[in-house]
Amino acid sequence: MRNSRKLGLAVAQMGPVNLADDRPKVVARLVDMLREAKGRNADLVVFPEMALTTFFPRYWMSEEEAVERFFEHSMPNAAVQPLFDAARELGIGFYLGYAELTPEGHRFNTAVLVDKEAKVIGKYRKIHLPGHADHKPDAPFQHLEKKFFEVGDRGFPVFESFGTKVGMCLCNDRRWPETWRVMSLQSAELGVLGYNTPSWNIHWNEPPHLRMHTHLISLQASAYQNAMWIGAAAKCGFEDGFHMIGGSVIVAPSGEIAAQSSSEEDEVIFFNIDLAIGDTFREHVFNFAKHRRPEHYGLIVERTGAGAPLPHD
Amino acid sequence: MRNSRKLGLAVAQMGPVNLADDRPKVVARLVDMLREAKGRNADLVVFPEMALTTFFPRYWMSEEEAVERFFEHSMPNAAVQPLFDAARELGIGFYLGYAELTPEGHRFNTAVLVDKEAKVIGKYRKIHLPGHADHKPDAPFQHLEKKFFEVGDRGFPVFESFGTKVGMCLCNDRRWPETWRVMSLQSAELGVLGYNTPSWNIHWNEPPHLRMHTHLISLQASAYQNAMWIGAAAKCGFEDGFHMIGGSVIVAPSGEIAAQSSSEEDEVIFFNIDLAIGDTFREHVFNFAKHRRPEHYGLIVERTGAGAPLPHD
Repeated sequence: MRNSRKLGLAVAQMGPVNLADDRPKVVARLVDMLREAKGRNADLVVFPEMALTTFFPRYWMSEEEAVERFFEHSMPNAAVQPLFDAARELGIGFYLGYAELTPEGHRFNTAVLVDKEAKVIGKYRKIHLPGHADHKPDAPFQHLEKKFFEVGDRGFPVFESFGTKVGMCLCNDRRWPETWRVMSLQSAELGVLGYNTPSWNIHWNEPPHLRMHTHLISLQASAYQNAMWIGAAAKCGFEDGFHMIGGSVIVAPSGEIAAQSSSEEDEVIFFNIDLAIGDTFREHVFNFAKHRRPEHYGLIVERTGAGAPLPHD
Repeated sequence: MRNSRKLGLAVAQMGPVNLADDRPKVVARLVDMLREAKGRNADLVVFPEMALTTFFPRYWMSEEEAVERFFEHSMPNAAVQPLFDAARELGIGFYLGYAELTPEGHRFNTAVLVDKEAKVIGKYRKIHLPGHADHKPDAPFQHLEKKFFEVGDRGFPVFESFGTKVGMCLCNDRRWPETWRVMSLQSAELGVLGYNTPSWNIHWNEPPHLRMHTHLISLQASAYQNAMWIGAAAKCGFEDGFHMIGGSVIVAPSGEIAAQSSSEEDEVIFFNIDLAIGDTFREHVFNFAKHRRPEHYGLIVERTGAGAPLPHD
């Protein structure tokens, strides 16, 4: 038997944040869930993407208006300070997604990793921005991440913290296998993310059940194929009438779901994850050094879009 | 509504091939399934990996003995000719896995793609060889693919045939997301593979149900994330007392299982696949040209094994 290496992981799903909900009200909800997670002996709590506001890319507006209403100019800031204070008091870390305006005026879809002393020790800026930049007046709502955000400039970073190595990503990144592979090649044992996933696809008539299905199979396969634990936190339910999926999960390196939310409201799920389970997979089926063949993976970086089949002999 | 582009896809799962079963007996089973598939209007039939013999890498023996007993020196050859003759007669193509000895004396775990005129139009040599090369006398069986085979030298090839683009791989390749990505970057719309997956893991006490679970989630996520159809054919059941999983499937670009075998015996499953379903995913969520960011994927080809986290600012 391998010695276990346990970490108390909580995922704090959020119900809707409506346009009328101000930052203090939202932060109070986050603090409540931080305390609940601490009560279950969590070391780390994963909050959603854009946890402090509604999922505003669904609304057409100018960049200036979006910045004014929905972006954070620093992290922490006065509105979010109670969350950092509670974390320090409780001795618990967290991951938090928010819209970031940099001092230089750049806009990113960002998440921070905060340690048990409430210090920001990691930051990620979303790379796989879904949606579009143009106005689609005939769509029931917009998905303007490509308008409001620049592509992230920090890669898929992995931070040595919480006694392990933690990789960060956001929402749509989870559907791209490159995200997880770049993390696992940096020896990440745990990947954390938040997401806002509309239940309806504005581009085609996708059955809503598929949104949950593809969310889950992407996380399950990626956890397995990279021998990682994954914690994924939804913001979900009806935000001012626009529905988003729940399905917050903690997934094991076996690809099995260890815990899954059962509501579309604020809800803390918890699992005492054993990081050593990943070691077994890393040693055998996914012993990268022994089995990977990068000489055959070149197209992954040589092409962006799909092209013609390579010539054969 | 998009115009459909239909292809009749059959997956011909095989029950066990025991050591005592000679090639003519095995080929007769393949011909029977080819006829059954044709009766369902199949254009293409996917047969398993090492379809002509038992899964011999479970036995310790010299390379010379393995070649003598289990390798094909040409394809087709006299023993397999009845299958090619039946394909030409019926006007149906197939994928077939076998152990290949080249004229130069190289040994590969290989599959060929054969068109409706019974012409070999594609060949793949397995890249992700699992298992080990040394003798493990304490294990209940061996997994000697690294002893008997060289790493494939043809990449993950995609062939324009059957009115579409067909990518080929084998068995353990399906667990590596790079396999599928290299195919989809060549515009593959369908991926085909055969496999032999022991129900027991000789390296650790893996619960057997996980073997089926990880097989299915890998195929489902890869079909979805690459907007491809996948057809996967098992050789399964007890080969001389050694059990292998079934679970042959046809998976849609939605990640949903369209058809799945219900036995551990010779069994043909069929689905009239609509290649146009993949177009929807390729245009939107997985529009690679619009959304992929290869500048952040470098580690996938720069590293083989996992290493330290990249430095952060």
